[in-house]
Amino acid sequence: MNGTEAPAGPAAVVTADTLRRFATAVFERAGMSGADAGIVADVLVWANLRGVDTHGVMRIPRYFNLIEAGDMNPRPVIAVRSETPASVLIDADRAAGPIAMTRARAEAARKARNAGVGLALVRATTHTAALGYYTSAAAREGMAAIAVSASWPNMAYHGARAAGVSTSPISIAVPDGEEDALLLDMGTGVVSMGRLAQAKKIGAAIPAGWALDKNGNPTTDAHAAEIPLPMAGPKGSGLALMIECITSLIVSNPLVAEFIEGTAEGRRHRQNGLLIAIDIARFGDPDVFRGEVARLVKAVKSLPADTGSTEILMPGERGKRTFVQRTHDGIPIPPAILEELRILAMRLGVPMFALSPG
Amino acid sequence: MNGTEAPAGPAAVVTADTLRRFATAVFERAGMSGADAGIVADVLVWANLRGVDTHGVMRIPRYFNLIEAGDMNPRPVIAVRSETPASVLIDADRAAGPIAMTRARAEAARKARNAGVGLALVRATTHTAALGYYTSAAAREGMAAIAVSASWPNMAYHGARAAGVSTSPISIAVPDGEEDALLLDMGTGVVSMGRLAQAKKIGAAIPAGWALDKNGNPTTDAHAAEIPLPMAGPKGSGLALMIECITSLIVSNPLVAEFIEGTAEGRRHRQNGLLIAIDIARFGDPDVFRGEVARLVKAVKSLPADTGSTEILMPGERGKRTFVQRTHDGIPIPPAILEELRILAMRLGVPMFALSPG
Repeated sequence: MNGTEAPAGPAAVVTADTLRRFATAVFERAGMSGADAGIVADVLVWANLRGVDTHGVMRIPRYFNLIEAGDMNPRPVIAVRSETPASVLIDADRAAGPIAMTRARAEAARKARNAGVGLALVRATTHTAALGYYTSAAAREGMAAIAVSASWPNMAYHGARAAGVSTSPISIAVPDGEEDALLLDMGTGVVSMGRLAQAKKIGAAIPAGWALDKNGNPTTDAHAAEIPLPMAGPKGSGLALMIECITSLIVSNPLVAEFIEGTAEGRRHRQNGLLIAIDIARFGDPDVFRGEVARLVKAVKSLPADTGSTEILMPGERGKRTFVQRTHDGIPIPPAILEELRILAMRLGVPMFALSPG
Repeated sequence: MNGTEAPAGPAAVVTADTLRRFATAVFERAGMSGADAGIVADVLVWANLRGVDTHGVMRIPRYFNLIEAGDMNPRPVIAVRSETPASVLIDADRAAGPIAMTRARAEAARKARNAGVGLALVRATTHTAALGYYTSAAAREGMAAIAVSASWPNMAYHGARAAGVSTSPISIAVPDGEEDALLLDMGTGVVSMGRLAQAKKIGAAIPAGWALDKNGNPTTDAHAAEIPLPMAGPKGSGLALMIECITSLIVSNPLVAEFIEGTAEGRRHRQNGLLIAIDIARFGDPDVFRGEVARLVKAVKSLPADTGSTEILMPGERGKRTFVQRTHDGIPIPPAILEELRILAMRLGVPMFALSPG
């Protein structure tokens, strides 16, 4: 659901492979194993390929800062706890989110193949990145997958004039008719933090109902906007609150209460996650399922489009198109992000990637 | 999330016990076993007690019509299929939704106690009634529970000028600090069908963004409003579409495509459901969990309220208060509903309940 960021100036265009190699080198230099660095790089670049640049390589310097601050552990000892026939609780030891969530996807799918459904709970990870990466990977393995993640409060709770819950994302994916995934990946806010940041950059007025200012007053001034409002009022903040309950509270790592109470732990960057996989083949023929998804998509797309729409889009369809286009043409990187990456590369002694003009 | 219906005229006030006895008698006369009739009655009256009158005893005549039409089976042969260590697929044989979903709750909880997580998929049931009944019951057994249900299209798909998905409800419940449940129960529409019907009755203008008219044009005229819009645009309709995939398509009983294609089966009343239970005790101390829910609720309620709010409410809190009040004072039944119930009672030879003035 995140829009593509329009760069503020002329952007360089870089291939996915180049960005992956660069990100891998940075994370290795920051202390990760080569395998782990490669996974984190792949998850971030996947977001860029999908057009979700807020979750792409612009996160590299932020992840490095988390490692420096001791909040992200580049050499985590990930332990499986509370294993049951259909579930695992993974203590992530402050691993990079992509490492913990990739492990969660694998464990949930393994459990689902044995037990019909598999649950992976993730305790004490860091920024989980684009959840759709993990659910769509599970879908390509024949699973229906549901993932959520919990973070500290950055979104207004309905009826409050302060942040009380996070813009907790929800992703659901199923195998589609094209050996790929039908993929929903959305935040519970009316607008993403990335889209708010983008509006700030452009400076145009934002619609009423998007955000509060730092004092908790509704604002249409992009520069003053600080706290996004929940989608559909009590529904968005209610979902976010329940996500905190079914992730953070089950794994005994509360984030929201610690933050609001102002404890030292509450101000540290921490996340928790949950991924459920359902093995479709245990309930019917997976080829029939894929055919039915194709039929459903065709039926919904056959509806008359409203006057504001040129076509009816499926969840994740725009991202899939951007993926194809950017895989072919490369990924545009705005000058400000390039500059941040260059400074980090110099500091770590990692060769900066070569640029072709955008 | 459904509001309490204000009756159009003076309402009679009836105790929950009286309504349960009446509904049980009607459903027995309509062919159900005494046990099944009692379950359906309890689920409907629970909705009235919570203030969700659209899912309460006003459904009795509609359920009877479904039985007469052959769409609801009062003597279903419910079969468990595709059983795995952590899941069941329940073929409901067109049972009343409360019968099928009560069975699903029991099976999911049983599986979760053995396997950590339990999944119950329900194929070919009818109106699932208030999903919060089943999730909150599971929560009182120590489970975190997630339920969704799928129905034929009655809500606009984002970007379309026609119904393309249903207002598929989502409910999530966890045990709370008071031996009860913290309970979210919401539709994926910006407004419920019940609230639209209520606006029609009052005749006042409805807000822009709530609904389309029968030709697919946006309207603020309550009388013309026919098709509710999805909450948060593509998010609401995306969730509803994915709910169709993870319920109807996994259980091989597609509803949306059949409806849009206009098949005979597509115009029959049918629903599918899904309930996931997570046994909290397998991952930590359930008393600590309950304490953490109480702590979270207290923290969020401590936030400053916005100027439009007198207090900050938790998911389901208004319903819980109404439950206490109506358990004590009785349930108001509007004259039009009373009249429908009286006609049905006479037709079936079931004694109509006595009234005290409202």
